[in-house]
Amino acid sequence: MSLVIVGTVAFDAIETPFGKTDKIVGGAATFAGLAASYLYDKVKLISVIGEDFGDDNLTILKSHGIDVEGVEIVPGGKSFFWSGKYHNDMNSRDTLVTELNVLADFDPKIPNAYQDCEYILLGNLTPQVQMQTLSRLTNKPKLVVLDTMNFWMDVALDDLKEVLKQVDVLTINDAEARQLSGEYSLVKAANAILQMGPKYLIIKKGEHGALLFGEGQVFSAPALPLADVFDPTGAGDSFAGGFIGYLAKVKTISFNNMKNAIIYGSALASYCVEKFGSAQLQNLSEEDIENRIQQFIALAKFEISA
Amino acid sequence: MSLVIVGTVAFDAIETPFGKTDKIVGGAATFAGLAASYLYDKVKLISVIGEDFGDDNLTILKSHGIDVEGVEIVPGGKSFFWSGKYHNDMNSRDTLVTELNVLADFDPKIPNAYQDCEYILLGNLTPQVQMQTLSRLTNKPKLVVLDTMNFWMDVALDDLKEVLKQVDVLTINDAEARQLSGEYSLVKAANAILQMGPKYLIIKKGEHGALLFGEGQVFSAPALPLADVFDPTGAGDSFAGGFIGYLAKVKTISFNNMKNAIIYGSALASYCVEKFGSAQLQNLSEEDIENRIQQFIALAKFEISA
Repeated sequence: MSLVIVGTVAFDAIETPFGKTDKIVGGAATFAGLAASYLYDKVKLISVIGEDFGDDNLTILKSHGIDVEGVEIVPGGKSFFWSGKYHNDMNSRDTLVTELNVLADFDPKIPNAYQDCEYILLGNLTPQVQMQTLSRLTNKPKLVVLDTMNFWMDVALDDLKEVLKQVDVLTINDAEARQLSGEYSLVKAANAILQMGPKYLIIKKGEHGALLFGEGQVFSAPALPLADVFDPTGAGDSFAGGFIGYLAKVKTISFNNMKNAIIYGSALASYCVEKFGSAQLQNLSEEDIENRIQQFIALAKFEISA
Repeated sequence: MSLVIVGTVAFDAIETPFGKTDKIVGGAATFAGLAASYLYDKVKLISVIGEDFGDDNLTILKSHGIDVEGVEIVPGGKSFFWSGKYHNDMNSRDTLVTELNVLADFDPKIPNAYQDCEYILLGNLTPQVQMQTLSRLTNKPKLVVLDTMNFWMDVALDDLKEVLKQVDVLTINDAEARQLSGEYSLVKAANAILQMGPKYLIIKKGEHGALLFGEGQVFSAPALPLADVFDPTGAGDSFAGGFIGYLAKVKTISFNNMKNAIIYGSALASYCVEKFGSAQLQNLSEEDIENRIQQFIALAKFEISA
């Protein structure tokens, strides 16, 4: 039994109002994998990198017990590279460079040892690659979580709608929920999207938290107000990794467990943004995570007696 | 012992994507007074209206047990009138007409019967009028709540900072918190604002809920996701009225009671926006409010066991 995460393992170069980095390790599967590794011990990645990625960088993942057998290394190839600059409000950013490199021909391969996959996170990739991955699994996983973005709604909407039919949980932001559904009200948007296939919808609202819709219920998760947000890169991926990692750990899919999973995802995302790249996510302790969970509990709790 | 609310009692004409109204009863003190009246039975208004306001409209307030002795009627005068048009997203609006009329010379008068004031809500008015009101109270109230807006930060910042020194709770939105403090991070903004006088700060974030800062703690209140928002006018005032009405009811000022007060304020605001103007706020039952409180509890609750 394992948790498989499909997504990019890549280099990022990031500029924020607080500084800038050279090429550092990034990619959705890196952030999600690291986040999940704190909650579940059988995390397996599927990705593609170039020879430039280097053993030291792969060791970052391996040292967290993450299985990288499914991370294909293309001989002579260059890893996916993204560079972006965040504006002063940290909520918007400009992409400076996108070099797909080996990602352009990504043909996801599933090692035999991954066929025990019970939980799968399909990170933000072309809907076609997401679909291919699912079709190559011998057994249908217990839980399929899919992350996507507005870009795929613009250029591959039909493919996206096709893969959504096989998805249990979709995670997108509020603008994307509105785009995908054509509804402004998030309640109406959620109702429309839940007709497309997913049983649960998570609407990510960044500093405003997240909403979970499903089973005729709704849950509003807070975001932890932070004094310093250094770098939002990877926050959504850390969230998704923490979310599915928690569910893999507790083994039971229910609305209540999804709520808790969102809190764990939010806690990991809140750590992620406090340093550049995945630096903070590489060095957490169980106590760090427990402390932050307690902060979320205090943040949201109220008791009204009749 | 009573709860005094100072603010506008006025006419509004509202246009939203769902329709438009003729002149209907509005004003911050109207919304706040109606909201508070469901939670506390000694609500007293201070305001100024023209002869045009009419007995029928005052009866709306009186029928909720609201004392209007402090609502001065200027002979031959015209009531404050505001007209606005909301955009499709309902989060932004254009002001079409602002006629101050009798509000231009508002000189708040405190009836003797109001000097038992224990709780006071200083609605969004010039900081000078807010200050005058406080100075005319014989006894310092147990709790002073002040609402204001970016306009007063632009044109009367010194006066605003002066009155803030006498305030227990300030309610503003996130953009205003950033403007008043000069800090983008809401945590830093709150720390700076809590140095200006208020013991507690409530940052209103509309459809994203509200944050409460004070006593070294922070609380994040959700907003109820609504399928239909017909008219956001008065939501912030209903919130403030419900907030202070709850505190007047429970009589004890504490961070925990403030949290609950925010949930009650949010519940009343959520009803307010479901119909035009104050229509919905005029016709709630205790059961309606209790039902909505239960919805908020379900919305925010999660239970993580170690």
